[in-house]
Amino acid sequence: MDRRNFLKNVGIGAAAGTATLITSAPAIAATPKIKWRLASSFPKTLDTVYGGGEDFCKRVSELSEGNFEIRSFAAGEIVPALQVMDAVKDGTIECCHTAPYYFFGKNEAFAFDCSVPFGMTARAQNAWMYYGGGQKLLADFYAQYNIVALAAGNSGCQMGGWYRKPIKTVADFKGLKMRVGGFAGRVLEKLGAVPQQIPAGDIYAALEKGTIDAAEWIGPHDDEKLGLYKVAPNYYFPAWWEPSTQFSVMINKKEWDKLPKNYQQILEVAAAETNVRMLAEYDFRNPTALAKLQKGGAKLSAFSNEIMEASFKATNEVLEETAAKNPDFKKIYEPWRQFRNLEFQWFNVTEQAYAKFAFSKKLGK
Amino acid sequence: MDRRNFLKNVGIGAAAGTATLITSAPAIAATPKIKWRLASSFPKTLDTVYGGGEDFCKRVSELSEGNFEIRSFAAGEIVPALQVMDAVKDGTIECCHTAPYYFFGKNEAFAFDCSVPFGMTARAQNAWMYYGGGQKLLADFYAQYNIVALAAGNSGCQMGGWYRKPIKTVADFKGLKMRVGGFAGRVLEKLGAVPQQIPAGDIYAALEKGTIDAAEWIGPHDDEKLGLYKVAPNYYFPAWWEPSTQFSVMINKKEWDKLPKNYQQILEVAAAETNVRMLAEYDFRNPTALAKLQKGGAKLSAFSNEIMEASFKATNEVLEETAAKNPDFKKIYEPWRQFRNLEFQWFNVTEQAYAKFAFSKKLGK
Repeated sequence: MDRRNFLKNVGIGAAAGTATLITSAPAIAATPKIKWRLASSFPKTLDTVYGGGEDFCKRVSELSEGNFEIRSFAAGEIVPALQVMDAVKDGTIECCHTAPYYFFGKNEAFAFDCSVPFGMTARAQNAWMYYGGGQKLLADFYAQYNIVALAAGNSGCQMGGWYRKPIKTVADFKGLKMRVGGFAGRVLEKLGAVPQQIPAGDIYAALEKGTIDAAEWIGPHDDEKLGLYKVAPNYYFPAWWEPSTQFSVMINKKEWDKLPKNYQQILEVAAAETNVRMLAEYDFRNPTALAKLQKGGAKLSAFSNEIMEASFKATNEVLEETAAKNPDFKKIYEPWRQFRNLEFQWFNVTEQAYAKFAFSKKLGK
Repeated sequence: MDRRNFLKNVGIGAAAGTATLITSAPAIAATPKIKWRLASSFPKTLDTVYGGGEDFCKRVSELSEGNFEIRSFAAGEIVPALQVMDAVKDGTIECCHTAPYYFFGKNEAFAFDCSVPFGMTARAQNAWMYYGGGQKLLADFYAQYNIVALAAGNSGCQMGGWYRKPIKTVADFKGLKMRVGGFAGRVLEKLGAVPQQIPAGDIYAALEKGTIDAAEWIGPHDDEKLGLYKVAPNYYFPAWWEPSTQFSVMINKKEWDKLPKNYQQILEVAAAETNVRMLAEYDFRNPTALAKLQKGGAKLSAFSNEIMEASFKATNEVLEETAAKNPDFKKIYEPWRQFRNLEFQWFNVTEQAYAKFAFSKKLGK
C-alpha cells in the first residue's frame, strides 16, 4: 500500500468514527465498520436457499475480519417476502436475497435474472451472466430501480409439480386449478389451466380439499417438507418453466456506491461462491430426497412429448407478446434468445451425448 | 474486533516486519504482507485455464488490499508443467494451479480431484466436493503430499479428439496410435489402442506425418488453436474419459498453516469463484469455437453406442483393477462410485428430460 492509499484508508476508518491512528505501518489496512441488513424472501425452512443467503453474509464478515457485518432476516421478520425489492429500492434496507421473478408483475424483465420458461440451464445462465453480456444488460435494467444485483445461488432444473390426477395430454390442463405463478402461469393459461396464487403453507390443505388440482413448488428436497405426495401423488418433470432458477442479492445502489472498492469486491466474490455452492447443495440433497418421496408413494412421470411441444409453442407466443409490449423485456430478450440458442446447440453435443449414455445406465447403489 | 483479537492481529503485522503501531482503533485490521508464487501447469495460450489461475491470484490480491500477493507463472517459467505438484510438496514454491490427473502416474487417486472415465459431470463433481464428502476424502489423501488442494476451475465435458480416419466400431481402435494419457490411455489400451505421449506443440506435425492416427486435446475453444481439423478432421464426442475436468490450486501445507485464518478464507473463496467462472467461460467460448471448426471442415460425430458400451465395460475393469492394487484409490473410489450413481439417477430425471427436449430443438440463431 502506498502512502496516499494508506492515508485515504485511514480517512475511511476515521469517518466510521472508530479510529485514531498514529503509525507508519504500511501493512495495516483500514476497514470501515459497516452494518447492513439483508431481507430474505425465504423462510428458514427452505434451508438451502435461505441458508445460501446466510452463508453469503457469513463470508462477507469473514473476509472483512468482522468489519462488514450483514445480518440476515428470514421472510417477514423485517420485510414481507415479496416486498424485499421495493425495500432495497427505497433504501429501507441495504440488501435482500430473493428470486427476482417474484417481481415479474412489476416488470417481466426481472425473469431474466432468475428463470424464463424454456430458458437457460444453470450452466448456460452462468455463461450468460459472467461472460455473455447478461450482467451488463441486467445492470442497465436494474439502474431504474436503484439496485445493483449479484447472482447468488441456483436450484437447477425444478420439478413440474404435484397433481391429484395423472396428466397425460394437453387436454388434461383444461380447467386445471394449479398453484403456479408468474411466467409459468401465463403460459399454462394458454393451455387452459387456471393459475392460482396460494402461500406455501396452504398448498397441502388446498390439495387435500380439492380446492386446487395441482401445485408446483421447487424440487425433491424442498417439496418433501410440504408432504404433497400424500394428497397429490402424481409428480411430473421437468418444470420447463424453471430449467434453472437463479437467486440474487439485490443491493441499494447508493449504499453500494458508498462502499470502499474492496468491500464491493468482497460482495462480488461472496455472491459467486454462494452461486456455485447453493447449486451443489441442491444437487447433493435432491437425489436422496427423491428416493424418499418415491418410497413414500410419489408417482414419478415425465410430461408427454405432446405436452412439452404445446408448452414450448405457448411459451414462444408469450415471450413474443411480452417483448412487443415491454421495451425493457425486449432489450434483454433478443440477445438472451440468441445466446440461449447457441448454448443449446453446443450443450446438445458432448455434454448431452455423455449425459444420455451415463445417466440412464443401471449403475447400482 | 475485541481487544484480544486486535492485539493478536497487531502481532501478525509486527511479525511481518512492517508495522509499528500506537493506536486505540478497533476498526483497523492487521494484514501481513505475504508474497507467494503460483506455478501453472498451463501455457498462456490456454487462455481460459491459465487465465483462471491468474484471476485467482488477482482476486486474492484485491481481497487482501494488495497485502497477499500471488504472482502467476506459466508452465515452464519457474517450474516445468508436470513438476508443479512436487515443487509444492517440497516447498520450492508455495502453490500451483494444475490438472491433478497429471500425477496419475504417481498415484491414480489424484484423478478423483480432476477427472475419472465415466465419472462426474461438472455439477456432480461440485456436489461431491462441497457437500458429498469429496473434499474431506481428498484432504486425507493429499496430507501425505503435504498439500492442501482447492477446486479451482472446470472445463466441462471435453471432446473425444481428432481422428485421421472415421472411427465407427470398436475394431477401429485396434492398433490406433492415439495421443492420450493417464486413465483414458489405460482404458483405450484395453480396446486395442496404442496410447502415445506427445506435447501439445508436436501433435499437429505427428498427425500430419501419420506418426499418430488420433489425438485428444480439450474442447472446441482450445482445440481450435492447434488447428488439428486440417490434418485429422474427424471430430468425435463425448470424451467419456473426461466428462468434466476439474482444475485445482495446490498449496504447500506448511505455508497454508502459517496463514492467518482470513487469508485462508480468501484463498477458499477465490478458488470457489474461479471454479464457477472458468466453467462459465468455457461454456461461453466453446459454442462459437465449434461453429468455426465446423466451418473450417471439422466433421462432427458421436461415438457409436457399441464404442460407448465397450469403453464403459473396459473402464469398469480398469477401475476395479486399480482399486484392488491401490488402497488410496480404493478408499476414495467406493464412496465416490456410490455418490456418482445416486447423482446420475437424479440427473436422469428433470435435468435430462429438459435437456433432451430443449437442446435438440431447432431454435434458429
